[in-house]
Amino acid sequence: MHPFTKHFSDSVSAWGEEKLIAGIRRWLGTASPRSPFGIGDDCAVLPAARGRQLLTVDPVIYGRHFDDTVPPCAVGAKLLKRNLSDLAAMGGRPTAAVLALTLDARVSRQWLAEFYRGLAACARHYRVPIVGGDIAQADGVVAASLTLLGRPAGPRIVTRTGARPGDWIYVTGVLGGSRRSRHHYQFTPRLAEGAWLAGQRGVRAMMDVSDGLAKDLHSLTPRGAVTALDPAALPRRAGGTVAAALSDGEDYELVFTLAARTPRAEFERSWRRAFPRTRLTCIGRLVRPGDQPAGSLNLDDYRGYEHLR
Amino acid sequence: MHPFTKHFSDSVSAWGEEKLIAGIRRWLGTASPRSPFGIGDDCAVLPAARGRQLLTVDPVIYGRHFDDTVPPCAVGAKLLKRNLSDLAAMGGRPTAAVLALTLDARVSRQWLAEFYRGLAACARHYRVPIVGGDIAQADGVVAASLTLLGRPAGPRIVTRTGARPGDWIYVTGVLGGSRRSRHHYQFTPRLAEGAWLAGQRGVRAMMDVSDGLAKDLHSLTPRGAVTALDPAALPRRAGGTVAAALSDGEDYELVFTLAARTPRAEFERSWRRAFPRTRLTCIGRLVRPGDQPAGSLNLDDYRGYEHLR
Repeated sequence: MHPFTKHFSDSVSAWGEEKLIAGIRRWLGTASPRSPFGIGDDCAVLPAARGRQLLTVDPVIYGRHFDDTVPPCAVGAKLLKRNLSDLAAMGGRPTAAVLALTLDARVSRQWLAEFYRGLAACARHYRVPIVGGDIAQADGVVAASLTLLGRPAGPRIVTRTGARPGDWIYVTGVLGGSRRSRHHYQFTPRLAEGAWLAGQRGVRAMMDVSDGLAKDLHSLTPRGAVTALDPAALPRRAGGTVAAALSDGEDYELVFTLAARTPRAEFERSWRRAFPRTRLTCIGRLVRPGDQPAGSLNLDDYRGYEHLR
Repeated sequence: MHPFTKHFSDSVSAWGEEKLIAGIRRWLGTASPRSPFGIGDDCAVLPAARGRQLLTVDPVIYGRHFDDTVPPCAVGAKLLKRNLSDLAAMGGRPTAAVLALTLDARVSRQWLAEFYRGLAACARHYRVPIVGGDIAQADGVVAASLTLLGRPAGPRIVTRTGARPGDWIYVTGVLGGSRRSRHHYQFTPRLAEGAWLAGQRGVRAMMDVSDGLAKDLHSLTPRGAVTALDPAALPRRAGGTVAAALSDGEDYELVFTLAARTPRAEFERSWRRAFPRTRLTCIGRLVRPGDQPAGSLNLDDYRGYEHLR
C-alpha cells in the first residue's frame, strides 16, 4: 500500500492534529495505558522499577525499511520487532516504548490507521505498553523511530564483549534472502531464545544479525582472534547462496559464542528441549590468527549492509 | 550553516559508516559512557535505578525546527533542551538519552560534527549521558529524534491533570517572538524551576508552553472551568503583541495552576528567593463558565502552532 494519498480529504493534514491524536489513541487502544502512564502529558510516567535497564532505538523509513509491497500493519509490527530483536540479543524483556513519527502531510489516514493497528497488535502480543510519542511533519518522509526500554529477563545481561579464541560460534534460524522471502517483516524476534541463552553460563557474547553476518561477526570477534567458519555449515534460506547468507542483512537472528569447555552435545540437547522449532547451528569457531583450517570462509571477501551509502 | 555539502568528499557518505561512528564517539566524548553503558552494543545498559521514571521523545527537523541560520551546535543543544523542558514540566531530572538520526547522504561532516559537539556540551552541562542511538538514511532529510529518560526530582510528579476552578494561572519568563529573538534555540529549560514547583503543595497542574499558550492552556483546563486571562498581565517579549505571546509557540516556559487557598504573596516571595532571575507572572485564573470578568481574553480567538498543516 502506498503511504501517500492524492486526495487531500484522505490525508492526515485534512484531519488536523487534534483528530489525529484522538485517532492514534483509538488505533492503539489497550496497547497505550491511560495518561499519565500513556499518551497525553509532557512525559509518560513509568511505574516503579528496580535494577538495571536496557535502552535501544531503531527506525523504519519509507524507501529503506519498507516499500509499497509491505502492508502498513506489518510496517508497524516490524518497527517494534526490530527493537525487540536488539533486546533479545542481550537477554532482555520489554518494559515500555515511545514512538516518534515524521510524516509528510499527504500521508493517508488509512495507511496510518493500519500502521498503528499493526503496531498495537504486536505491542499487545509482546506486552509492551506504547506510553508516548511525538508527531512532526517533513516533506516527502514517512519515518517512525521507536525507543524501547527493557529489563534483563534473568540475573545476567549478555553483551557483544567476552568471546575468546577457542569459542564455538552459533547462529539461530537461517540466513539470507530476507527481502525476497518477506522475512524482513515477518520474522519473530528471538526474545525467548535470547533470555534462555543469557541464562547459560557457557554463552559468552551475543548480538543480533541485522546488517549481515559478515559485517556483524566483527563486533563479536575479540582482539587476537579470527573467525573460522565452515561454509557448508552456514544455515541458508532455501534457494540462497553463501554470499546471501553472509551479506543480505535483516536476518534478525541471534549469533553467539559458546566457551570451548562447554559440553556441546548437552548444550544442544537442552536447546532442542527448550526450542524444538528454532534451528540452532554451530557455524565454526574463534581461533588464533593463522590457525584457520583450510577451506574456512574469509569474511573479508563479503560485505554486510552499509548504512549511509 | 547549510547541512548539505556539494562536495562528495565532505559528505557523511564518503566517510562510510565505520568512520562515522568513530567520529560520533569522538564528538560526544565524555557525554557518552563506555559500552555497554553507552554506544556500541545492541542496547545500552542503564545502572540500577529505583522508583518511578519519566519518558519523553521530541525531534528537531530541518525546515521545521531549524534552518540555515541556526548554528549546528545550537541545533544539537536545542534537541536535548526541548526534551529537558518536557521533563521540567513534570518536576523531573534527566537520567539518560538515546538519539535516532535520519540523514541525507549529502549531509556534510562538518555540520554533523558541530551538531554532535553542541549536543555533547549541553549533555555534559545537564549531566545527561547519551547512551545510544541509530543512524539511518533518507533522501532530503536532516532529522534527529531524542528520547529522554528521567526520574522525579522529589517525591512528587506534577501532571497536566488536577487544576480546579478558582486556581490561579502562572507562567514563567516571557512569551512570543521566539523565532525572531532566537529564543527558540537559546532558551534555558526550566529544570530547576520545575523541580521546585513540584515540591510546592499549592501547584496543582503544570506543563511546558511549546505550541503557544492559547493552544496549550486547553490541556490544563479541567471540565467545568474556563480561563479568565488578563491581557495586560501577559508577559510579552519586548516588541511583541498579545497575539504573538499567545500563538507563536516554542516558548519553552512553564505554565501551572496554583490552588486558590494558597497564600499568593508568600508563594511569590519564596519564588523570588529561589529564582531571583526568572520572571513569574500571574496571568489570570480558572473560573466557572459565565464567571469571566469583562475584558478577559477569549482564547478561542487565537491559535497555537498546529502540527501537520
